Amino acid sequence: MEILLYVVPGLGVLTLLFAWMRAAKVNRSEDGDKRMQEIAAAIREGAMAFLGREYRVLALFVVAVAVLLALGNMGDGGANFKHPLIAFSFVVGAICSGLAGYFGMRVATAANIRTTQAARTSLNRALDVAFTGGSVMGLSVVGLGVLGLGGLLWLYWGTSILGVEPMAGESLSAVVTILAGFSLGASSIALFARVGGGIYTKAADVGADLVGKVEQGIPEDDPRNPAVVADNVGDNVGDVAGMGADLFESYVGAIVGSMVIGAAAISGFKEATLLPLAIAAVGIVVSVIGTFFVRVKEGGNPQAALNSGMFVSGGLMIVGTFLLTRFWVPAEGIVFAAGSEPVRWGGLFAASIAGLVAGVLVGLTTEYYTSKERKPVHDIARDSETGAATTIISGLGVGMQSCALPVIWIVAAILVSYRLAGLYGIALAALGMLSTTGIQLAVDAYGPIADNAGGIAEMSGLPAEVRERTDNLDAVGNTTAAIGKGFAIGSAALTALALFSAFQTQVSKGGEMLVMDLADPQIIAGLLLGAMLPMLFSSMAMKAVGQAAFEMIEEVRRQFREIPGLMEGTARAEYAKCVDISTQAAIKRMVVPGLLAVLAPVAVGFAGKFGFIIDGPAALGGLLAGTTASGVMMAIFMSNAGGAWDNAKKYIEEGHGGGKGSEAHHAAVIGDTVGDPFKDTAGPSLNILIKLMSVVALVIAPMLV
Amino acid sequence: MEILLYVVPGLGVLTLLFAWMRAAKVNRSEDGDKRMQEIAAAIREGAMAFLGREYRVLALFVVAVAVLLALGNMGDGGANFKHPLIAFSFVVGAICSGLAGYFGMRVATAANIRTTQAARTSLNRALDVAFTGGSVMGLSVVGLGVLGLGGLLWLYWGTSILGVEPMAGESLSAVVTILAGFSLGASSIALFARVGGGIYTKAADVGADLVGKVEQGIPEDDPRNPAVVADNVGDNVGDVAGMGADLFESYVGAIVGSMVIGAAAISGFKEATLLPLAIAAVGIVVSVIGTFFVRVKEGGNPQAALNSGMFVSGGLMIVGTFLLTRFWVPAEGIVFAAGSEPVRWGGLFAASIAGLVAGVLVGLTTEYYTSKERKPVHDIARDSETGAATTIISGLGVGMQSCALPVIWIVAAILVSYRLAGLYGIALAALGMLSTTGIQLAVDAYGPIADNAGGIAEMSGLPAEVRERTDNLDAVGNTTAAIGKGFAIGSAALTALALFSAFQTQVSKGGEMLVMDLADPQIIAGLLLGAMLPMLFSSMAMKAVGQAAFEMIEEVRRQFREIPGLMEGTARAEYAKCVDISTQAAIKRMVVPGLLAVLAPVAVGFAGKFGFIIDGPAALGGLLAGTTASGVMMAIFMSNAGGAWDNAKKYIEEGHGGGKGSEAHHAAVIGDTVGDPFKDTAGPSLNILIKLMSVVALVIAPMLV
Repeated sequence: MEILLYVVPGLGVLTLLFAWMRAAKVNRSEDGDKRMQEIAAAIREGAMAFLGREYRVLALFVVAVAVLLALGNMGDGGANFKHPLIAFSFVVGAICSGLAGYFGMRVATAANIRTTQAARTSLNRALDVAFTGGSVMGLSVVGLGVLGLGGLLWLYWGTSILGVEPMAGESLSAVVTILAGFSLGASSIALFARVGGGIYTKAADVGADLVGKVEQGIPEDDPRNPAVVADNVGDNVGDVAGMGADLFESYVGAIVGSMVIGAAAISGFKEATLLPLAIAAVGIVVSVIGTFFVRVKEGGNPQAALNSGMFVSGGLMIVGTFLLTRFWVPAEGIVFAAGSEPVRWGGLFAASIAGLVAGVLVGLTTEYYTSKERKPVHDIARDSETGAATTIISGLGVGMQSCALPVIWIVAAILVSYRLAGLYGIALAALGMLSTTGIQLAVDAYGPIADNAGGIAEMSGLPAEVRERTDNLDAVGNTTAAIGKGFAIGSAALTALALFSAFQTQVSKGGEMLVMDLADPQIIAGLLLGAMLPMLFSSMAMKAVGQAAFEMIEEVRRQFREIPGLMEGTARAEYAKCVDISTQAAIKRMVVPGLLAVLAPVAVGFAGKFGFIIDGPAALGGLLAGTTASGVMMAIFMSNAGGAWDNAKKYIEEGHGGGKGSEAHHAAVIGDTVGDPFKDTAGPSLNILIKLMSVVALVIAPMLV
Repeated sequence: MEILLYVVPGLGVLTLLFAWMRAAKVNRSEDGDKRMQEIAAAIREGAMAFLGREYRVLALFVVAVAVLLALGNMGDGGANFKHPLIAFSFVVGAICSGLAGYFGMRVATAANIRTTQAARTSLNRALDVAFTGGSVMGLSVVGLGVLGLGGLLWLYWGTSILGVEPMAGESLSAVVTILAGFSLGASSIALFARVGGGIYTKAADVGADLVGKVEQGIPEDDPRNPAVVADNVGDNVGDVAGMGADLFESYVGAIVGSMVIGAAAISGFKEATLLPLAIAAVGIVVSVIGTFFVRVKEGGNPQAALNSGMFVSGGLMIVGTFLLTRFWVPAEGIVFAAGSEPVRWGGLFAASIAGLVAGVLVGLTTEYYTSKERKPVHDIARDSETGAATTIISGLGVGMQSCALPVIWIVAAILVSYRLAGLYGIALAALGMLSTTGIQLAVDAYGPIADNAGGIAEMSGLPAEVRERTDNLDAVGNTTAAIGKGFAIGSAALTALALFSAFQTQVSKGGEMLVMDLADPQIIAGLLLGAMLPMLFSSMAMKAVGQAAFEMIEEVRRQFREIPGLMEGTARAEYAKCVDISTQAAIKRMVVPGLLAVLAPVAVGFAGKFGFIIDGPAALGGLLAGTTASGVMMAIFMSNAGGAWDNAKKYIEEGHGGGKGSEAHHAAVIGDTVGDPFKDTAGPSLNILIKLMSVVALVIAPMLV
């Protein structure tokens, strides 16, 4: 079993090498004519400049938190193991998260133009380039994840650096406590990246749409629109870098959460602690295998190609998990709590499958509520015929309603996996959804590359058929993307719950068990405060988008007003000004919501120590539960309402209810614009928020007692 | 102390008599010319017809639930006292709630035309009629509340009908268990009335606005608009009858909640159980005194008149509570739990004041976020200049942000009142906000009467100055109304918490204490399901309004299209058809959301008994906590977003940002229309939802063990 110490980081290195080869393959493809190259260069420049500035700001944050963590973990933790190296874990986690975003963005900004070029000749070649680009992102994320975690495990458990006995099962509990810092690093960078990227992309998008499409009546991605480059940069910083950091965080959180719970087992804790890493390793291998199945023959169906990659990976993962649990888990099972029945391999396997099934069901429900082919979206389109107000009411209604089924699936997964294998089962259920992150993210990241390729085609005036091909590519994979979203939401809820239990275990160590009784007003106080945070956080994100979009709109209007010949196409718009506005706005406005998420649990946790009539750990437990409960709802509500509005607009554009240019279309565009910050800024950030707060609580737990 | 048994119901009768005298005073005022009378008669007819049909549907519900309650409470409850008479309490509660709505509506539909007539000569005479009408509603609600509760208390505790020893302190615990049925009756009728009334009024409003104002460009309340009568009927069924039932429910819930907790005390339980009724009695007296201070001399300020009524009542209430606690509570204090310190009168007094202060702060915060004079509304108005999409984003942001401070005030009230006087303190804090419901509701109900008076003035073609006077009246009292909303939200959270604790006490009786540990996945499962319910419920309410409005729009468009001479004013619109559409839609669509609220706790509570892997009482506790947490947020969010949009529109209509008819105004009208179902249908219903679910749980608790 100890061989894992070398296998896991080694596998991480191999995966990164493989990703690098795939990136080289992308770079070898043709990159189009001069006009295309100019535009692609502007996009890449804008994207990289944003990432550079974002990382400089985040570096300050990382250093500050690392110093505080190191100081707070000096000295003796009593019953809790404390060590300043947790700050090192944190820094490594933050760096790995940043690298994942950087790798993904570099290849995405190279793959976009090459996809356009490929689309000039064939749909399938374009698919190949775009998917290869996406797979670099996917494989980088999982590669960095297991390299980082595996490397730290080797350092902390394979050597005596922490002062615990190397390779001893008894040391694992201490080791994973320090390892949790990695998850904290990943989560905090992810939140800033999601919020910053989301503000950037939506400010540019709303600005480009409202002035360009609505006021001036020019098409999407028209080169006369001054915000068009910023809009395409936004797709990269939001949908590639932001999403990469997001999934890196989920992936790492699910692994660390299950390791922490596993280490608290009473017997078989070595197996329980290392099983999650082994599952992750298998997941990487099956993801790599899956990428080879995404192949289309000329004239074949791209959707089928993506599906076969996903299904092969998913199927192999089930087989892999079966074999792994069967032979990894001791025959007598693992005992997780004094006096409880041992959990055998079958329970662990079934719990992980329960998570997978719930994730797929959440995804299918998401698809139902947001698909262009289904009733909810058709209803919104019909309500658009009576104007924008009914479009909005209808979309908000659909978003709220869409919370019901996913919550039922998640709750069922919680109850079933807990019945099968206790808290550890819940953590494994989350991991079950995320083990194939490699291929899932490849499919997800392929979307924005295709989207960007379309933008480049439009801006460089390529024939309409090129744009049509890229649009086709973009439309493909919606179902797989919806299932990806389902996994993101489902695993967030389960992981938050796992981290939450880990927090309780930490706080209770050596003292009496912390009972967080709902009837205790301290808990209710925490619960209400916690439920409020996603509202406050979302309002900040929405407001940031609104203000940034307002500046963008003013600038775009100014350019149309002041640059003679812009509308006629004889003068060039000042793209860089719009890129600057988005960059500045995103950097400036990501800070406060990000800090809110990090500081709120710290404030509530330590309030009691400063004499406030609040009982730190108990109220903090309530806070986490409240944030999880209301955060999951708001995340589903906002993501699905946004998705449904988006597709209602597209449905009308296909000619329903009056088609393009009709009153209904005008109303649907307003719905879509409202949905933008919902689905791409606030909504997805909430998934990170709930886990980040839980992991903050977990990390500060030893200092609270 | 036993004298209370006669004083309280007697006071209820006296209050109702006084309300009847005030109603007679309204009826004695002049009622205008023939055209006005025709219109007023149409409004009254429509309102009464709706109420009649609504009550017929609810009667079926009441009978069904009563039978189930009686059957479920047969036999021996073990450690829990059970008695089928709880069904009788339920029926009485439902009837009192219905009567409160009926009385209020009768006088409101008489006061509206008389206010118009008075406004032809003087602002102050109009204020007098409108406020007198409002005060009938306010006094009916509190009168019926104490009469019903006091009467039942006399029956259950003053006689031996329950089989417990009359007038014995030990019997009180059993008595209040059966009394809780009254609260259940009040809450369930309130939910249906709020939802039904909300659907009615907003379907009519949206229909009238979108076709009349936006499409045809005719003013508000123009008699050519076919939906205008339905719109005015809506003000009555939503803002008068719906609100009356709502406040009746809050008032009764706060009293019953504190009585149940008081009865569980260890010493001094007689005092603790009866104190809430005594506070309510004092509250009625000071409310009646307050109404006499609402007087304006010719040329005086109506706002000052309303304020002085509120302030006199509020001040007297503080003095009254001081004296009451000082002399009612035994000098040695009351012991609420084994081994805890006794709570003395000062603690009880301070807890009640803490609630009052928190309520005022929540109200002021509400006012800040929704006032026409403040930055949030100005921001929305400014964002309207860039179109409807930014109006919506901005308003949603303001609504979400406005959750933060109120939650902090509520949490502070919870922590402080708990520290001062335990759970009983929290219940008293809620009661502290609601004790002056009589005068608060008088001020609240005065608004729709003035609104209706304006409609009648417009429809009967009275001179513009009459409408101006009624508009002035309508605008007055916004601050007091905002504070009323603050009380509604704050008390809902505190009362839900009190009922929740009462539920836990009931479930734990005689067995081991039910510990609802947040780390228990059963609780988390309940929490997530509970947090989902307000989303589902809101979506149903929004959807109902959307669908009903859609039908209304179609009908209004049809009439404009098919009735020749309608726009020219030579033909009469078919008002009755629109009234019918609203009525049918409201009755039909209130049923499912209402049943959801009643059945969800029952389903979760009993699921375990049917073999589902859910642990009934524990998961039910989680469900209630989740609904409270997410319901409070959604209620604040939706109410304030709606209020802010409404006032942003009014602000623009005053000439800011382009004034009436500008692009910004058009955008603001869309915001206001979206806000309508937010603030008048879904938002306020959620306050009832969270209490109704808690009281359902409390009532079924003895059957769960």
